Amino acid sequence: MDYESFFADAIARVKAEGRYRVFTEIARHKGNFPSATLYTDDGQQKDIRVWCSNDYLGMGQNPKVIAAMHKALDECGAGSGGTRNISGTNHYHVLLERELADLHGKEAALLFTSGYVSNSTTLSTLARLLPDSIIYSDELNHASMIQGMRQGRGAKKIFRHNDVAHLRELLETSDPAKPKIVAFESVYSMDGDIAPIADFCDVAEEFEAMTYLDEVHAVGLYGRHGGGIAEREGLMDRLTVIEGTLGKAYGVMGGYIAASKNLIDAIRSYAPGFIFTTSSCPILAAGALESVRHLKNSNVERECHQRQAAKLKKILADKGLPVMPSESHIVPVLVGDPVLCKQVTDTLLNEYGIYVQPINYPTVPKGTERLRLTPSPLHTDEMMVELTEALVEVFKRLKIKRAA
Amino acid sequence: MDYESFFADAIARVKAEGRYRVFTEIARHKGNFPSATLYTDDGQQKDIRVWCSNDYLGMGQNPKVIAAMHKALDECGAGSGGTRNISGTNHYHVLLERELADLHGKEAALLFTSGYVSNSTTLSTLARLLPDSIIYSDELNHASMIQGMRQGRGAKKIFRHNDVAHLRELLETSDPAKPKIVAFESVYSMDGDIAPIADFCDVAEEFEAMTYLDEVHAVGLYGRHGGGIAEREGLMDRLTVIEGTLGKAYGVMGGYIAASKNLIDAIRSYAPGFIFTTSSCPILAAGALESVRHLKNSNVERECHQRQAAKLKKILADKGLPVMPSESHIVPVLVGDPVLCKQVTDTLLNEYGIYVQPINYPTVPKGTERLRLTPSPLHTDEMMVELTEALVEVFKRLKIKRAA
Repeated sequence: MDYESFFADAIARVKAEGRYRVFTEIARHKGNFPSATLYTDDGQQKDIRVWCSNDYLGMGQNPKVIAAMHKALDECGAGSGGTRNISGTNHYHVLLERELADLHGKEAALLFTSGYVSNSTTLSTLARLLPDSIIYSDELNHASMIQGMRQGRGAKKIFRHNDVAHLRELLETSDPAKPKIVAFESVYSMDGDIAPIADFCDVAEEFEAMTYLDEVHAVGLYGRHGGGIAEREGLMDRLTVIEGTLGKAYGVMGGYIAASKNLIDAIRSYAPGFIFTTSSCPILAAGALESVRHLKNSNVERECHQRQAAKLKKILADKGLPVMPSESHIVPVLVGDPVLCKQVTDTLLNEYGIYVQPINYPTVPKGTERLRLTPSPLHTDEMMVELTEALVEVFKRLKIKRAA
Repeated sequence: MDYESFFADAIARVKAEGRYRVFTEIARHKGNFPSATLYTDDGQQKDIRVWCSNDYLGMGQNPKVIAAMHKALDECGAGSGGTRNISGTNHYHVLLERELADLHGKEAALLFTSGYVSNSTTLSTLARLLPDSIIYSDELNHASMIQGMRQGRGAKKIFRHNDVAHLRELLETSDPAKPKIVAFESVYSMDGDIAPIADFCDVAEEFEAMTYLDEVHAVGLYGRHGGGIAEREGLMDRLTVIEGTLGKAYGVMGGYIAASKNLIDAIRSYAPGFIFTTSSCPILAAGALESVRHLKNSNVERECHQRQAAKLKKILADKGLPVMPSESHIVPVLVGDPVLCKQVTDTLLNEYGIYVQPINYPTVPKGTERLRLTPSPLHTDEMMVELTEALVEVFKRLKIKRAA
């Protein structure tokens, strides 16, 4: 077999479908977010503004976070030196796990190298540990949760997105004796809508199911201490597992779960994806620790974030741009065609120095291709006006439908 | 179902089997490796020496690496801000991928958040892309490779450890038309033995199979530029994929693959475990870049490492301690019983301030429970004598069999 041709063909297929992605190489400027340098293919450099980062609050440049990382780097060096069980449990990992357990009102927490790994490892391990278990999964759950369920090889039932009645239907027809997990996200990152957590918890309790909540697009951003939507709605104690990330609102890298001591201990003891991997660098834990602590005590960033997101939605809508309904800080703008969507973002980047990533199928359904804007507290009103004017011009030039 | 009791029981089972692990909480001291502070359960702190780290060369405290990370932190901030496709491709990622491709003599390279993720994601994606493919896997391959093969759901055939004849037998009985991948490691981390790479390549070529080599315990450590065992033996061009880590000899965190441009492009375009995860912090890429570059041009660390490993084997053997045969830098010492193994390491830590992790089943076969020592260029001759004397005393006290 000619493997090279095979891979070349695989790439050609992606290109033919218009789904081939080229990395946009940038360097963000600490102290000057959302500004960044763009490195172009022809070796040029250019100043741009980033409108599609998941560093939602700009904590990746927060002076306290940066200082904590400099300090830890000088104390402990770069890598952790091993897996958690073999010389790789650093003091900062332990402090961070305590802080995260406290954040979510749980007995314990466990760090993973990424949010992706925390979801895939925890769900697969739960499915393998609990005999004959069934996972009830929202149809829009993230790729990492889907991977975890596949890996776990347990039974899986998909309920319609945020549809409590459908979840109930599925639970009603299941064997009451089997262990059950209801798995869903709080904020869905492509539409910005929010799950009916209380209703899901009611149904789960009625049918004696565990609940697994992914709060990666909510931790740091919602709730009085940044505990997420579940904190905002006073529901943290009703969730069996809360999963979060340190790589978005907290501005660093890594993932975690918070749950009971026994559940955490079981995952820690049985999950290959946790056991057989070098632990995070101590500096990442030190930075995340500072970030979590800061956002526990400060609401300024969260309030400004919500204010700017609301403002952007209004400015765009006022100009007739098709802002999609969103209950959260995420601002999707409909284009409805993959080729046009890419043309919009290419034009924005090349002519206006505005970096937005096109969101096409399979990340979103065909026909709903969109721009996904993520305003932060660091995006000023002037930047929003600049973005809006650019969008109006580009939509006009490319003859893209604006709001009715 | 009472989930809490279920998890408590799961933990009780691990404890009953003597496999329950307690994290050893430490803080390594930059500039003073292998020294570290131990945080004990009763809130005390104590100075110890670490003898079980995979930061094999101490690059985690190399001044150039640390300086590069401080610099990148001040330039770009903490997190990358997104996935590789959505605002998370930093200039340092691109530079590091070029450097790694060059290190292994390949057209391209691709970074992952960990070595575990690079193995599991690449192998599962290859298996899914190549129709009806078969993976031929060494029986001692790492958990991350096993997970990748399971996830890929393709056919899998296990050959006896480092057994070329057995691999040939399995290939002979397979359909010649099916795509094939021979997957193995260069240095096996628990025994320290080395694969017959050239022979594996011969057989793979004969049967038109791709080759996938995990060099995580060899990159940075072997070969004139740190390209691993395949570089040392002049075989890099015969391997389809070389996988490595930035978290062991390079002293930082992360994993990667190096291969042809088409293969890398296919993985980059099709692998959920690559696409849907926040990319590594730019500082990690900056640190790893410096570390890889340094070890490309400097043999001092490698030579000293091999010298110290050989010296330790000799000193231990001279005192009649049961050093297991090892062709590499890894120094296993046989205990042969899980309870004694744990007693040895507890005594070393508590009474001598020497930190070695017990290696028990299932990581190694029952009856071969061992200590796994990893001397580095920073472990002095005095430290080796101190370790050896402590081991002699503890083996005597616990009546553990020494060499015949």
